[in-house]
Amino acid sequence: MVLPKPIRKLIESFEKLPGVGPKTAARLTFYLLHVPQTQLDEFAEALLGLKKSTVLCSICFNVSETDPCPICADQNRDKSIICVVEQPLDVLAIEKAGKYKGVYHVLHGAINPLENIGPDEIKINELIQRIRHSQLAIGELILATNPNMEGEATAMYIANKVRELKTKDQRLKTLTVTRLGQGLPTGGDLEYADEMTLAKAIEGRREY
Amino acid sequence: MVLPKPIRKLIESFEKLPGVGPKTAARLTFYLLHVPQTQLDEFAEALLGLKKSTVLCSICFNVSETDPCPICADQNRDKSIICVVEQPLDVLAIEKAGKYKGVYHVLHGAINPLENIGPDEIKINELIQRIRHSQLAIGELILATNPNMEGEATAMYIANKVRELKTKDQRLKTLTVTRLGQGLPTGGDLEYADEMTLAKAIEGRREY
Repeated sequence: MVLPKPIRKLIESFEKLPGVGPKTAARLTFYLLHVPQTQLDEFAEALLGLKKSTVLCSICFNVSETDPCPICADQNRDKSIICVVEQPLDVLAIEKAGKYKGVYHVLHGAINPLENIGPDEIKINELIQRIRHSQLAIGELILATNPNMEGEATAMYIANKVRELKTKDQRLKTLTVTRLGQGLPTGGDLEYADEMTLAKAIEGRREY
Repeated sequence: MVLPKPIRKLIESFEKLPGVGPKTAARLTFYLLHVPQTQLDEFAEALLGLKKSTVLCSICFNVSETDPCPICADQNRDKSIICVVEQPLDVLAIEKAGKYKGVYHVLHGAINPLENIGPDEIKINELIQRIRHSQLAIGELILATNPNMEGEATAMYIANKVRELKTKDQRLKTLTVTRLGQGLPTGGDLEYADEMTLAKAIEGRREY
């Protein structure tokens, strides 16, 4: 049996999403056959509006409705601390933790030679320019890229770039570069921790 | 941080889908921020067209672009055998198996008292009318509802209805009602089969 074209087209659209296989795509599509038309209309409208109604903040490159974004525009945020993350979702995760009062810089990716993503494909140059031309001297740069190979490579690349910058610019002498703490996750189980995580936890142990 | 409204709206739309939680919804939404606008347009168009460009076949109630649907309109299908399924996806699954040459009847649900779905909420009356008024005498009715509580209850209800019908209508004397075979799934492991499945497999054993 050939599926009706309208159904096939929606299944194909769902299949393009990450982590959605043919079976899930079909299940979602047939589920939507039973919802009211208004829900489909809202869904379609949300898809159409997603990129049209959002911009990248020209300071931190986070996704936002306004430029600058609410965080960069907020007088209460400490502009001398920049937390560098890979994706807008990472900003959301850190904001939910509620501990951070500085600002962000979203790279929109990580260096990944296997997928042909070099330093120029992500917002690293923009970060360097931001640090160089900031009116306020930046005191701390937190490298919060993911603790995997791509994230580590990106962090290392940025750290080297900043080191170069410091030798040239007197104003950046007090800038410290930090990396998010690595070790055992809260609620985790030491027995099941992998060797790398345990090694990092021992390396990063603190006085109690 | 409050998420931009266009992003929040799309996350909400994704969250309404079965099996999609808040984290997956956010992941899919932020993924879509990086795709070309044309892909978003196609996705939205597919959603809008889903119900507008499809109808239920007036004979078998399967989802289709045409009425009657291609299966009911096909001269090569045996119209004297009706396979009763719960959902359009079940038709797809049986068609993929490639063994069945009869026609279908889609109930669009199963009897489920806990969710207030009685026999009148699904296409059972339509099935009874179809059997009664069929020009060709129906020879076999295959009950292919799911092998769970709701599916079994539905199968039993339909079987009783058909038994009543047979006492009234001479023409239906030769109609046999069957149920899909139950037992061990192909590629399965006897050791891990649950008791019910094993009981059904022993009950349904065949000469070899």
